[in-house]
This record gives sequence, structure tokens and C-alpha cells, in this order.
Amino acid sequence: MTDLKIPRDREDDYAPEPIQARQQHIRSHTGSALEHTSSYSLDPGTLAGNVESFFGVAQVPMGVAGPLLVNGEHAQGEFLVPLATTEGTLVASYNRGMKLCREAGGVTTTILDDRMQRAPVFSFGSAREMRDFKDWLDAHFEQVAAAAEETTSSGKLVDIQTFSVAKMLYTRFNFTTGDAAGQNMTGKATFAACAWIKQNYPAELHFLLEGQFATDKKTSVVNMLHTRGKRVVAEITLPSALVEKHMNVSTEKLFNARMRGQLGSMMSVTNNNGLHSANGITAMFIATGQDVANVAESSALYGFSELLPNGDYYASVTLPSLIVATYGGGTGLATQRECLEMLGCYGAGGVRKLTEIIAATVMAGELSLGSAVVAEEWVQAHDDLGRNRG
Amino acid sequence: MTDLKIPRDREDDYAPEPIQARQQHIRSHTGSALEHTSSYSLDPGTLAGNVESFFGVAQVPMGVAGPLLVNGEHAQGEFLVPLATTEGTLVASYNRGMKLCREAGGVTTTILDDRMQRAPVFSFGSAREMRDFKDWLDAHFEQVAAAAEETTSSGKLVDIQTFSVAKMLYTRFNFTTGDAAGQNMTGKATFAACAWIKQNYPAELHFLLEGQFATDKKTSVVNMLHTRGKRVVAEITLPSALVEKHMNVSTEKLFNARMRGQLGSMMSVTNNNGLHSANGITAMFIATGQDVANVAESSALYGFSELLPNGDYYASVTLPSLIVATYGGGTGLATQRECLEMLGCYGAGGVRKLTEIIAATVMAGELSLGSAVVAEEWVQAHDDLGRNRG
Amino acid sequence: MTDLKIPRDREDDYAPEPIQARQQHIRSHTGSALEHTSSYSLDPGTLAGNVESFFGVAQVPMGVAGPLLVNGEHAQGEFLVPLATTEGTLVASYNRGMKLCREAGGVTTTILDDRMQRAPVFSFGSAREMRDFKDWLDAHFEQVAAAAEETTSSGKLVDIQTFSVAKMLYTRFNFTTGDAAGQNMTGKATFAACAWIKQNYPAELHFLLEGQFATDKKTSVVNMLHTRGKRVVAEITLPSALVEKHMNVSTEKLFNARMRGQLGSMMSVTNNNGLHSANGITAMFIATGQDVANVAESSALYGFSELLPNGDYYASVTLPSLIVATYGGGTGLATQRECLEMLGCYGAGGVRKLTEIIAATVMAGELSLGSAVVAEEWVQAHDDLGRNRG
Amino acid sequence: MTDLKIPRDREDDYAPEPIQARQQHIRSHTGSALEHTSSYSLDPGTLAGNVESFFGVAQVPMGVAGPLLVNGEHAQGEFLVPLATTEGTLVASYNRGMKLCREAGGVTTTILDDRMQRAPVFSFGSAREMRDFKDWLDAHFEQVAAAAEETTSSGKLVDIQTFSVAKMLYTRFNFTTGDAAGQNMTGKATFAACAWIKQNYPAELHFLLEGQFATDKKTSVVNMLHTRGKRVVAEITLPSALVEKHMNVSTEKLFNARMRGQLGSMMSVTNNNGLHSANGITAMFIATGQDVANVAESSALYGFSELLPNGDYYASVTLPSLIVATYGGGTGLATQRECLEMLGCYGAGGVRKLTEIIAATVMAGELSLGSAVVAEEWVQAHDDLGRNRG
Repeated sequence: MTDLKIPRDREDDYAPEPIQARQQHIRSHTGSALEHTSSYSLDPGTLAGNVESFFGVAQVPMGVAGPLLVNGEHAQGEFLVPLATTEGTLVASYNRGMKLCREAGGVTTTILDDRMQRAPVFSFGSAREMRDFKDWLDAHFEQVAAAAEETTSSGKLVDIQTFSVAKMLYTRFNFTTGDAAGQNMTGKATFAACAWIKQNYPAELHFLLEGQFATDKKTSVVNMLHTRGKRVVAEITLPSALVEKHMNVSTEKLFNARMRGQLGSMMSVTNNNGLHSANGITAMFIATGQDVANVAESSALYGFSELLPNGDYYASVTLPSLIVATYGGGTGLATQRECLEMLGCYGAGGVRKLTEIIAATVMAGELSLGSAVVAEEWVQAHDDLGRNRG
Repeated sequence: MTDLKIPRDREDDYAPEPIQARQQHIRSHTGSALEHTSSYSLDPGTLAGNVESFFGVAQVPMGVAGPLLVNGEHAQGEFLVPLATTEGTLVASYNRGMKLCREAGGVTTTILDDRMQRAPVFSFGSAREMRDFKDWLDAHFEQVAAAAEETTSSGKLVDIQTFSVAKMLYTRFNFTTGDAAGQNMTGKATFAACAWIKQNYPAELHFLLEGQFATDKKTSVVNMLHTRGKRVVAEITLPSALVEKHMNVSTEKLFNARMRGQLGSMMSVTNNNGLHSANGITAMFIATGQDVANVAESSALYGFSELLPNGDYYASVTLPSLIVATYGGGTGLATQRECLEMLGCYGAGGVRKLTEIIAATVMAGELSLGSAVVAEEWVQAHDDLGRNRG
Repeated sequence: MTDLKIPRDREDDYAPEPIQARQQHIRSHTGSALEHTSSYSLDPGTLAGNVESFFGVAQVPMGVAGPLLVNGEHAQGEFLVPLATTEGTLVASYNRGMKLCREAGGVTTTILDDRMQRAPVFSFGSAREMRDFKDWLDAHFEQVAAAAEETTSSGKLVDIQTFSVAKMLYTRFNFTTGDAAGQNMTGKATFAACAWIKQNYPAELHFLLEGQFATDKKTSVVNMLHTRGKRVVAEITLPSALVEKHMNVSTEKLFNARMRGQLGSMMSVTNNNGLHSANGITAMFIATGQDVANVAESSALYGFSELLPNGDYYASVTLPSLIVATYGGGTGLATQRECLEMLGCYGAGGVRKLTEIIAATVMAGELSLGSAVVAEEWVQAHDDLGRNRG
Repeated sequence: MTDLKIPRDREDDYAPEPIQARQQHIRSHTGSALEHTSSYSLDPGTLAGNVESFFGVAQVPMGVAGPLLVNGEHAQGEFLVPLATTEGTLVASYNRGMKLCREAGGVTTTILDDRMQRAPVFSFGSAREMRDFKDWLDAHFEQVAAAAEETTSSGKLVDIQTFSVAKMLYTRFNFTTGDAAGQNMTGKATFAACAWIKQNYPAELHFLLEGQFATDKKTSVVNMLHTRGKRVVAEITLPSALVEKHMNVSTEKLFNARMRGQLGSMMSVTNNNGLHSANGITAMFIATGQDVANVAESSALYGFSELLPNGDYYASVTLPSLIVATYGGGTGLATQRECLEMLGCYGAGGVRKLTEIIAATVMAGELSLGSAVVAEEWVQAHDDLGRNRG
């Protein structure tokens, strides 16, 4: 093993010297020039709490889509949406869907639930001891909540869901977290609650702070059923003539395609019976400083559409586990803050507005790609091989 | 509705003027200064094919972790791993895991499968007509493959999986794609195959190019069972003393915690019985110009560990649907290429090496967080409330 | 079409004449002699409410297994277990497991939860109207419960779980049902609740009495997470020497096999990470007059085992959706009642005892087959082809 | 522990003496009279291979439904269907659906696939050793198949599916089994194949005969995707006027209800997006001597329906893992054989006919209950509380 130990400065690791030392270290050991990664306008001094061993930035190109017309309760009016991506056609596709939605009167968005959780698992010597604990926990909810809430000024422990099996009690400690996204707050508060429990429970218990029932950064049925982050719906009713005009497909074909997609989704067992929510969500997450790894669960989607008797098309997407923030995390960094400001969402109070804009963006993207897939069939039927788009 | 139509230049939309026009448009309609987003070193002229309506960049800070010691078939030796993230502790956590792995002799990586697919669904008037088609399709595989392969110099149609239901045949057209990631290649080739089928099948059929059996950018059981992109394993055997020394946990506790996590994963029905593969994968995807929306399926993980009779700990992660590329897409952009060069993976021939490095990184991250969760319990037992880390 | 209309008697369809008429009808149109099906000791007059167009009985052979030693809270002591089956080795296999369990001190059983539900879905014009209804429903729980409970003397509406999506509210109306199994009671009470809701809700709503969230006679994740019928655990700790002696396997091999089964279960995505709970449950269901179609969800199983530091083996099975009754349904029929009497479970008050006996039986069966699968490997290693048991 | 050891006769355990000894043993230790269980017309001498420690029979009442009009490839014409059940309304409900289907011209049935499997898992020291084995296994398929087929005159090894993870190779050995159901045949043949593999593979390997990828008596996604037993479709197109006349519902309402059920099924994550296939399948399985525990996987169902432009209703059910036999197992027992004879399915050659009749029966039951659920809503709207059916 060579000595590839990465240079660090224990006093101020975000000062120019350690950063340059790391860049030099990388250059000398890998041959990468780091010309562009070391070129940035952000102030490294702002990065404590966001990244360790900083050595540069990824420049992710952003396109703008819109205007997106949102009829939300928090987001109202037209928005220009920043999308950070390297996948060609993504911005154009979302833009096309936004145009359709705008002509149809906009996307209506509704937040249905909002909760964040940690999910400790408690272990005992037998099932009966576990069941005793469950009863005790139910009876001591107030004290547990008080212990949890001592660690936070804004978080509230709403309830504790329990799932019993063998001699273990898996739980979900569900919090409302005010304007914060709340993952850290929730972790800290749940740990304090567990510590209080361990000190006060009259018998032996063991706990792990996470028993795979919060599934942070992993999609799961339990999160889709019971919400993680925001549960938000975007709805729109599209006149059939408008769809035909903009998308070159009939609503009947669109619906029939969707029926096949539904069954395919059930058979392949996916967490998403839509098409590509991950595209829009990821691009907005990178742009606005979200924790992008949360795409794993945030992209889960329940789609529901109806072909109305008059031929119009009701479409909806429900995002059951969308995790967003407008302050904390990466939201205050240089470019990320600017993108939040583009949407009027920066800072406290902005998170529900951002939630609705993301949901409306996803809706637009689903309609755009959904139509393209169907139109393709039609094109193919009337076209020769040489002219297909592939 | 105001007139928020986004400025474009049909001749060269990546020239300074349209870019500045869009920036000005955004500034005037949203009040965002775009000071940092409009500050970049990349050449916008390189962005055609990556983004439309370009107006600036997201600067995502990157830290470096390592050295990561990999005993792969394509990646061999020590690597400095670039991680683009805004989540504090992520780099430090992966770094800690990499140190453990290095002292244990490195992570062994093995690629098990490699295939990319499109999944058209074919519809008929009845189940029997569908069954007839299935027989015909099986009998005409060679011609279908030839039609598909006319569109690509490197892609090969390996097989067509079929899943029949009602009067529809859902399929997966599985391709090897040489050194390319292959999503576009696969889409184009499958469309050509479908066009050939439609022209040559002696009866009526309808198809949709995607029936939700490839689940691009959506995780699914079918992709986890049958591979999408790369199927790769990372393995390591950790001496118990080493784990105790670096992680402050016994391997027995580590294993017991894992057993609880396994059951929790089964109950919550997640696509990942590990901990946080999405963190490392996302950070590497952003850094190296991957299609970050593919985190949705790429973060799926099967973990398997054993407590050996001597107390040592065998750990493994299998990533069944990891989608990576080392050219095409965003891999050639300014900072992204530099990060690939850090790993010696840029360009054709690098994709398997990158695959192995990502798998080894995920392994390191699982061990680090897995140990931290367990140690927490221990800390808690010996600690007072005020000193917990929350 | 021939005239195959089945003879019926509107006044008393269980009298000898219509029964014989049907037998004659079947004989003449199908050529089946019905010699044995028309031979029975039960009194057809007892069958109203159990079957229509009665024409005879299926004689399902029963074997007896045991004694089964149960350390339950409701079942305590040794039981002789009737198993109705036509599958050779089933009774012998369960019997072998019961012997092992008895020598290990018996199976400890614990009931964790008990609830039965109907799951109406309520539909509205938009997501916001749906959300308004959810708030109204929460605020009117007392009245809704009162309306539901008017239809039953023993059932209590515990809570209403809600799952929102698009413009629909899916619910689970969870009841305790006293000593009854409660499916009919629950259906009737939920319908009354829905009628009250429809009459009193100040805006328009549509409902369906079942929205696939109770999944009667279908297994589902939601039922496994949230219990349908009884949630019951059976536990046992087996000394390693005892396992070696009776089962010819080491507990270490048993555990290693189980680890492989766990991962296989997660990958194949089954509702049961055990082996063959359906065998014992079905055989007991037929014998004791349960609704055998409920095997679909009652056979769901979470298994959890540990190899203890001293080599002993902790095993458990949790049945999260076991639907049983000791009166009503088929429990009072001639042979079924006798089998319940064998177990001392007939009638009101017996249902929790029966629940525990079934759980203990399942535990015994898992241990028996689990050991056999492992021993097979051992046998094979020391054996030549001609002597394998296949 | 009392001495509850069950009497047995090692020479002939099906002779009158041991049977009576067991009856006496049960009577004396439990107080159950066994009057009816000990009353049967079957000959106990026929039960070797079906049950051990025989002591009597369960008399399960049977009703007859029909005529069921089937337009199958193996079942053609009208059938009187025996249903063994203790659930009131079940026979009447299926009968109602059969009448509707008959007036609509009958149910069209199509068998799509037919395979039975065992699923050994092979373990190695590392992922690479496992991958080597996979290559070897692919290269030696012919010899493996030959070894397997030596144990059976009718079974053929079609293919071996492989699923790799960590250092294990999970497999499915898929057989066609001629006219037999094939579970035993498949187990024996796979064991022989594994023995051959172990003897001939040039490196060390361990195997377990079942790695949870065949999931016998457990439902699983892998079995629904890849078929276990028969994969069969039943289809029908119902004129809207006929539905309105017989079912008192419009096809539009029926379709809208189904759409809600689809989404509910996806959310609750069930193996069955229909309503109650388990009812009909269980009742026929008991009547005709199937292995009733297979209801666990046989009741899995994919439903697909369409509201046609003219208002007619296309309905289908696909049963992807229906396990049936017409000889062997319990099919030759006294009453079971008579029921198979009612359907003209007894013995070799009957299994595909029986498969189609079961599928058609399930279709009829789905339409009947599906209509009832919808009509309920309509009734409720025009009814007062006191008159609801509950």
C-alpha cells in the first residue's frame, strides 16, 4: 500500500491551504488536472456541516423549464423551474409537459401529510416481555414525547407506531418538524426518547436506533403507506382536444397505455406506477440543495388517472415520501440558494411551497413522457423504419 | 398568466446571448441574482445533448475519501474517491469505512452480470392470439435480433424474456452493450425490433415501447432479480479484533444488529436490506457525470453477512441494478471527466473498473454506518443524556 | 346449451328430496356415481348458512399428531392435533416436530394483537375534498363508532386507519370482535358506519365497502404489518444436543441454512420466510371448520431464529394474519365440532386457545421440515446416488 | 407430561385395530366422542401415502354450482361444479356469476405455461467461485438434465434459472411433468441432479435442496412472474345490457370500482388484484383432492379489465401459479374421485381440463362479487339504515 493518506487540517480544514494540499495530493497520485473542479465561486468557508475533505465542486449544468402554472395552497402562479441534469431531452420534455398543463389551467397541488421519523427496534428475552413493553410504552407516551421534545424547539412527537414480531418491537417515532425537513432533529429526539425509556423502563431492554422501519434513503412499502417527509398530490384535468393538439395522441390511447402500465407495474413490483418522477425530482434536488440520496424514496409514486365520459383526462400523481427542505442541509449554499430564490422558496416557510412546485413538475413530466410513449406507437404504424426516432 | 416564455435561440442555443437572455429573464421575473449559478468554468458549447435552456450550473461541493483498497478484476489498488454531497458526515463516514477495509486487506469486487433492456408490451385481441405471438417471437428470435442490431455497432440482443397475462405479452429485450451504458442504444434497437415485428407478424398487434418491465429510474423486483445495468458484488472478511479496535463494537453485536435489520427490511418491504447505499452512489454519480436519477434503482441492494465460527465477520453487498457509464451522457463534461480521471476510469473500457470502485465504496459505507448504529447503543448504556450525539 | 339447471326447493332446500334431486341430476348429466359423496353422517338440516345447493360431502382423511406441548396463556398442556390432509408425510412430519418440541419443554405462545376489518374507500371530486373528509372523519369518530356498533352486541370499532391517494381515501375500519372471528360482524358494522357517514357528511361522497385494504382471502403487506385476525407468536429454545439427537443436524448448520432461506425469501418476495406453515394451518382449518380460503392470508409468516453463543437455537414464528373461530361458520358442523372438542376449544371462549395451538403446531412443522432440508445435504455428501431419498 | 403417545401399528397402520385404538385414545384423553369423524364410507386401506395416524374423516359439505359454460381448449361445454365449503353464500355467489357468464356465451380459457420446480441454492467461498460454478452449470446442462431425468419417465428439465447474490447461486430447476402435477417428481429429480453436480463439480460446493425460490405453499413474486404449476387465463366480454339486467350495475360503475381496487391492491401490496379467487379455488381443491395447502400460491391472481368504447366489459383473470392434479395425491380417494368424475377430469389427461374449469370458475366468482360490491353502494344510496344487508 502506498501512502495515500489525505491531507487534513484539524484547525480549519476549509482554509485555502488544506484544500490546495488535497488538490495537489489528488493531482500527484491520480494525474487528474482538477482544473475545473477547483474552479468555483462558492466560499469554502460556508461548507462546514456540508462536506468533509473538500477539494472542489462538481459543476452540474442547469436548464430552466416553464413557466409552470401551479394552483397550490402554498405555491400559486407561474414558476421558472431550475433543473440540474446531464441527460439530454429532460429539460425539453418537462417544458413540454408544463406548456400542456398551463394551457389546461395549471396543476392543482395538495399536501396531505407531513411527518418525519426514526424507527428504533426494541429487543427482549421473549415475546411476552416485548408485549409488556408495548403496553408500557403506550402508557408512557406523554413522558416519552416530553423527553424527545426537550432536544428540539420545533419538533413534536405525534405518535409511535409499533410493529411486533418474535421478541422485538419495531417502531416508528413520527414527528412533525415545523418548517424543518427534520431528519437530524428526529434522530436526536428519538435517541433522547430511547435513552429516557432505557433509564425508566423497569426491566431490561436493548434498542437499536434504526430497525429498518424508517428506511432513510431506501424506498419501502411502509414509507409509501405511512408517509415520510411530505405526502403531496398533483392533479389536473386535461381536455381531450388539448391533448390531441399538443401531444398528438387521443386521451383514449393515453388511458389504454396507462392501463397496460398499471398492470406491468404490479407485475414487476415497482415502487412507482408512473414513468420517470426520478428525473424531475433529481434535477430539482441537485439544483435546490436537497439531500439527493433521498431520491431513492422521494421518487416513489402512486399514479391514478381516469378517462372521463366526455373524453377528458383526469391525471394525478401522489408522492408519498417526498423529502424536501428550504433551509439547513445544502439549501444555503451559493448556487442552491439562488435556485430556491428563483422559486421564491428560500428559507423558513418555503418548504410547502417547494413541495407543491416539485409535485406539479412531476405531473408535467409524467404527461409529457406518457404521451410520447403512446405517440411513438402511432408514428411507427404510419412510418417507415428509416424515419423512426429510436 | 404573465408572459414568462423562456428565451431561446433556434440556431445556437448554447451561445452566450441566449444564455444571458435566459439569465436576465430569470433575474427579472424571480429576483434571484444568479451570481453563482452563472459562474462556471465549463464551456456551454459542450452541453448540447446534455441539457436544454441552459442558464448556469449547480456547484455541488466535493470531498475526497480514501484511499480505498480494491481487489477487483478491473479495479486493483488504491483509489481516492470523489464524493459530491451537501450532507455533513457523509464523506467522513465513508472515509472511516474505507480505512477499516484497507486494514482488513481491501474489498474484493466481482461483476456477475451486465445487461440493459427495453421492455415493450404487445397487445392482442385475446389470450390465444397473444400466445400465438409468443410462439412466433420465439421462432423468429434471430431475425428480431438482426433487426435490432442494425441500429448499433456494439449492442447485442442476448434474449427476450416474456411475461404473459390476459391478452398481453410483456417482454424484456436484454442487450449487452459493449462498453456503453446502453440505455439509448437499447431503446433505439428495441424500437427497430418492434418495427420489424410489426411489419412481419402475419396478424394484428399493438405495442408500447415500454410496459413497465424495464422500470427505468424506478426500482423493481424484476430488475433486482434479473439485473439492469451491472450486477456487482463487494465482499470482505473482517477480523473481529480489527472491528473492535476501529469501530468499538464486537462482531457479535454487529451481526445481531444485522439480523434485526434483516427482519425489519422484510417487514417494511424495502428494496435494500442494507443501510445507505444511496449516499455513496449518489455522491459518486454526481461527481462522475452519471444519470443521477438512476439512483432510484441503482441503490437497490442485497446485503448478506455471516458471523464466522472464529468471530470474524464476512460482509457482502450485491448491487443488482447499478447503472454506470464512463463515456457518453455527462461523463465528458468538465468536472465530471476530471473525477473519472481521478479514478482512472474515463472513457471506453473504464466502466467495469468504475463499477467495482462504486461497489467497494458502498461496502465501506455500509460497514461504517452499521458499526455506528450499534456503537450508539453501547454509548447510550454508559452515557448520560446530555452527552449523546443525537 | 343443454338444460343443466340445478334442482332447488325454495321452501326447504336441505330436505331429502331436493338433495336427492340434485344427486340424480348430477348422476344423469355427468356419470359420476356419487356413491361416497352421498354417504355422510351429518344432518343436512344443519347446513343452512354454510352451503347452498348441497349434494353431499367431501370425506377428507384425518390423522392425529402429538402430543403437542404448549405453554400458552390460553392453551396449556398437551394436545392431540387433528390434521385433515391428503398429502402423505404431512402428519408424520408435524408429529416429529412436536416430539422435538416436547422434549425441549414445549412451545411458548403469545397473542400480540386481535382485530378484524373492512376497508371502504371513499371517493371525491378532488384531493382537497378528500382531505376535508379525512378531517371530518377524524372529528366524528365517536358517532361513526356508535353507528357501527349499533349493529353488533360484541364488536367495538377500535380505530380507522386512513391511506390517502389522489382524490380517494382508503381506510381500514378495525374492530375487536369479542369471541367471534368477526368477518360478517365487521362487514355489517362497517356498512352501517358508511351509511351513517353518507347521510351525515355535508358534501357529496361515494364509497365502496371494500377498497382492497382488508384483502380478505388475499395476503397483503398491509395485513402483515397491521394484523388481520390474530397476531400470534410461537417461540422455543432448542438445546443443540437435542437437535443433533433427534434431527441429525447441528444447530449451526440449521442456522446457516436459515440465513440462506432468509435471503432467498427476500429475493423471491414471498409473504413467508418460513417453510410450510400452509400445510399445518390448512390441515387444522379443514379439520376444525375454519374458512379454509383464509389460508391465503393466514399462512403468512415472519420467522426469526438465533444461534445462541452456547450453540442452542432460538426459533420463533409470528403469524400476523391468522383468522380463526371456534363458533359460527363451519365450527358447529358434525365432524368439525368434534375436532374442536379434541382440542378443548369448541364454542365461545375457545378462539384464543385454538390460536395458540395452531401457532405451536406451525412451529413444530417448521422445525421438522427445516431440519430435514439440512440433513438432506449431509446425507447426500456421504451417500451414493442410488440411495438418496429424492 | 402425561403419556399421550399415539397408538400405531408398524405392520399395518390402516387396519381397523390401530384406527380404533387411536379413536379410543383420543376419546379417553380429550372427551371428544368422534361419532361423526369415525363415520365414513372410504376404505382406510386406500390411505397409505395420503395420511399417517389416520383416525377418521372431516365431512365437508359440498354444493353444486352451474352449469358453467367453458370455451376452453381442453374443457368445452357445460359443467356442474362441486364446491366444498362451510361459508354460506359462496356457492350461491359463484352460481350467480356462472349464470351471467353462460348468458354472455361462456368463459374462454387458455393455458399459457406449465412448469414445476425445485430451487436449490449453491454456496461457495466467494462470489468468484460462485460465478465459476454458474458458468460450469450452464456448460453442463445436458448432463445435469440427464441425471435428473433418470429418476422419472415423464419429467423433462426445461431450463435452470439462476439468481446470483453474494457467494450463493439461487436456482430454479424448471420441469415439465407430463400429465402429473409433479412436485414429488421434481424434488426427486432435482436432488439427483444436485448429487450429480456435487460428484462432478471439480471444486467444493454446498447445496440446500430448497433456497426459497420455488416457494412451495407460499406465494411469491418469482412464482407469479415465472409460473409454478399452470399459468392459465380466463376471459369474457360482457354486453353492458346483460350486466345491467343480471347484476343491477352499469359496466361503467363496475369499471370505476375496479380502478379503485387496482390502486388499493398496489398500495396494500397484495398478490391478487382481484377479489376472492381463494374461495372458488379452495372449494374445488377440497372437493377434487388437490393439495389444499397450495391455495397459498394458487390463489394468486392478475386481473385485467377494460371498459370498451361501446360500454361492453372485457374481464380477465390470469392465475400464474395454479397447482392442480387429476391423479396422484388425494385425487383417487373416494369422494374426491367422484368429484373429478363429475367434471370428466379423473385420471391422466384430465389436468388441463380441470385447470380450465377452475379458471372459468374463478372468473365467474370475480364477476359475481365484483358486481355485488358495486351494487351495494347503489342500494345504500336509496335505502335507509335499517334495511341494509350489512
